[in-house]
Amino acid sequence: MKQNIYDNDTFFKSYTSLRKTGVTYNDFVEQPAIKSAISTLNGKTVLDLGCGNGQFSKYCVDNGAVKVTAVDISMNMIEQAKHENKHDKIDYICTPIEDYEVKNQKFDLIVSSLMIHYVEDYTELIEKVESLLNKNGEFIFSTEHPIVTSRKEMNNWMKDEGGNKLHWKLDHYQEEGKREQHWYVDGVVKYHRTISTLINTVIQSGLVLEKLIEPQSIPSGLEKMPKLMNEKRRPSFIVIKAIKQND
Amino acid sequence: MKQNIYDNDTFFKSYTSLRKTGVTYNDFVEQPAIKSAISTLNGKTVLDLGCGNGQFSKYCVDNGAVKVTAVDISMNMIEQAKHENKHDKIDYICTPIEDYEVKNQKFDLIVSSLMIHYVEDYTELIEKVESLLNKNGEFIFSTEHPIVTSRKEMNNWMKDEGGNKLHWKLDHYQEEGKREQHWYVDGVVKYHRTISTLINTVIQSGLVLEKLIEPQSIPSGLEKMPKLMNEKRRPSFIVIKAIKQND
Repeated sequence: MKQNIYDNDTFFKSYTSLRKTGVTYNDFVEQPAIKSAISTLNGKTVLDLGCGNGQFSKYCVDNGAVKVTAVDISMNMIEQAKHENKHDKIDYICTPIEDYEVKNQKFDLIVSSLMIHYVEDYTELIEKVESLLNKNGEFIFSTEHPIVTSRKEMNNWMKDEGGNKLHWKLDHYQEEGKREQHWYVDGVVKYHRTISTLINTVIQSGLVLEKLIEPQSIPSGLEKMPKLMNEKRRPSFIVIKAIKQND
Repeated sequence: MKQNIYDNDTFFKSYTSLRKTGVTYNDFVEQPAIKSAISTLNGKTVLDLGCGNGQFSKYCVDNGAVKVTAVDISMNMIEQAKHENKHDKIDYICTPIEDYEVKNQKFDLIVSSLMIHYVEDYTELIEKVESLLNKNGEFIFSTEHPIVTSRKEMNNWMKDEGGNKLHWKLDHYQEEGKREQHWYVDGVVKYHRTISTLINTVIQSGLVLEKLIEPQSIPSGLEKMPKLMNEKRRPSFIVIKAIKQND
């Protein structure tokens, strides 16, 4: 059973009201890094894995993509995407990534934003991505940084009595697997993987690693969300870009 | 001025008596990982950057290397190497890596064991390595893991009153540069770099990343040095392997 927290009503309401503020880690840290890694969208076919509300899919067509296939497990998210980011060059499809099947179609760019830490079988996913890329196609994904997913307990800032952050608590780094946490609702499951697993699996699939980004906030984020200064102390996300050199 | 702590008498005595025990992080964690990453030594020419006491250079000729050039900044180490690991297929050269010049000679394998965190200009070093590799040549190096070099203060295990390790203290991850510490003597300088810097610099030099290893202890290490269990909690080292695909 694939996890579908976005169709939990409590979670969905909290999540969408957060995202609507436009003042989030996504806006200032993760999305700028993903976008900076794309060589060009002009004339490209795109697969958006875990498209959420369709904001990034819409960004792709607004910047020259000729076709975007946008996939998400959550009917809530797909309905919101169809409502807010409808476009005749975007196909929204509601299915778990793991079950997504496509024949006789490949893509120039495959992007996945903060979805892969929910997927149990990382190797299978990466192999599927590799098989769906055109020659010279790009794969760019973000995931929670192993530094933040490793420790099994939550509340990972060590604080003094005044609530000041002293350091980040790190532990259990080599113990890959499930991490359960409370994020609006109890029992949200994410999967911790080491950096070497994240990278070696991509390379073993046949893709060529081009770049790693451990993003910090863009300047406007530091003004609007001062706590993003903490991204200097420990990275929340990692962005990996790889290329399919051979067909 | 390049740092040469190994020619400090106090440091050198402590360091050599530690290494002679054969019960070290090098023996059980770092060297097994380096060796596992080498495709073959048979018939290969090797450059050993930061060769220390020559143990690894000797391992190379014992396992089929036809010629090893072994470089170290420390006269103490080079003299020990010439004494303990002398071999007519090994040339020991005493010079800082940064000043090492060689004309009309390239290598099939370049290895550097736990030296690169002492080097200030990482980009220059990687570009030199790339220029010294034959086509299809391998570059394998280990360095202290960014998780352990990041925090500016030392004593990075958070302990309870009974001395039990609660978690690893992580901080200052994105602030690259000098970290000064006490290791037998005061003022040992190491350079912290993020994982993205370590990897992207290799890729930008033209080398192709093949593998990342965040090694744990081999089983015999856990018997002889029980504290190596802590390598599961946070990795001390990272090993990077890259290939020169084009000449």
